[in-house]
Amino acid sequence: MKKIAQGPLTSFYPLPTLLIGAMVDGKPNVMTAVYGGLANGKPPKLNVGIVRSRYTWNAIEVGAAFSVNIPSASQAKQVDYCGVESGANADKIAKAGFTVFYGDLGTAPLIEECPINIECVATHILDFDMHSLVVADIKQTHVSEDCLTDGVLDTTKVDPMVFLTAPARKYARVGEVLGDAFKMGLELK
Amino acid sequence: MKKIAQGPLTSFYPLPTLLIGAMVDGKPNVMTAVYGGLANGKPPKLNVGIVRSRYTWNAIEVGAAFSVNIPSASQAKQVDYCGVESGANADKIAKAGFTVFYGDLGTAPLIEECPINIECVATHILDFDMHSLVVADIKQTHVSEDCLTDGVLDTTKVDPMVFLTAPARKYARVGEVLGDAFKMGLELK
Repeated sequence: MKKIAQGPLTSFYPLPTLLIGAMVDGKPNVMTAVYGGLANGKPPKLNVGIVRSRYTWNAIEVGAAFSVNIPSASQAKQVDYCGVESGANADKIAKAGFTVFYGDLGTAPLIEECPINIECVATHILDFDMHSLVVADIKQTHVSEDCLTDGVLDTTKVDPMVFLTAPARKYARVGEVLGDAFKMGLELK
Repeated sequence: MKKIAQGPLTSFYPLPTLLIGAMVDGKPNVMTAVYGGLANGKPPKLNVGIVRSRYTWNAIEVGAAFSVNIPSASQAKQVDYCGVESGANADKIAKAGFTVFYGDLGTAPLIEECPINIECVATHILDFDMHSLVVADIKQTHVSEDCLTDGVLDTTKVDPMVFLTAPARKYARVGEVLGDAFKMGLELK
């Protein structure tokens, strides 16, 4: 297969689509982020990348509580809105029709309509040219009751959003299941 | 919606499915990783999480060249194999039927069969209890010619894999497109 060198791109597929909740100037705010993932297994840590010109950045420092909310595909329009509007100009939570609740930390605003809500506390921040990479301890995970099957989180009910970064710049659903991890490769072993 | 607190989980959806290539003990090796994403937009940086007991970890230090290869859904079995076998025990690249090539850096093994190959150099490493978070500069991106449409990367041709972490632990395809980012939310603005 012929390969074409395209320069140093951010063509990394797929990315998650996340809503980051934080208290900014004493009020709950939410922003959309697609730079993020898991940073450690046990104890669980996650990381998110935030552009420092974003309103939410004012709330982030080591020790700060914030939330990562996993939206479902049915919320794509609201999620995109929370990325194209700034909390400096609008009450995005109200305009998106979202409801805020608080969990164990008390200061990380959580979006009730999102199936999974992760409460976290920032532990490390690396400042790069455009984004700061924020690493955080996952302190608690709240799941909507209707996304459980026999008490266990059911991803088909979560119906998470997938982000396809540039040049696509599209949101998608998770599609066809290909197989079980740690299992389908065993026949090659 | 009633919420159920489930404790601090790594239930973060979706995650990417990546093949990390590195020279270990002078030979090219590849491992599967699902902790990873973008860390900075311009200039592009990515991050991956690697468990330090993995064979590939021997090749990683600040300044080391390695690759992140984005596989396509048709490679799910081989990708899973590269996660359940160790390079200490087998030539995974040969057993998976992969072909290695080298790009600008010369020392980051790239998997020809993967539609996107990213060459990078580690710049920061944060060691956590289980994983080390490796941040790297993206130096070059190679794309298979058959994944371009009019010279531009076409994600539908890449057909990337989505990883659904515990409790699902499944690979999936990207499904139905929901809409355009930075566009579908504008009507709420």
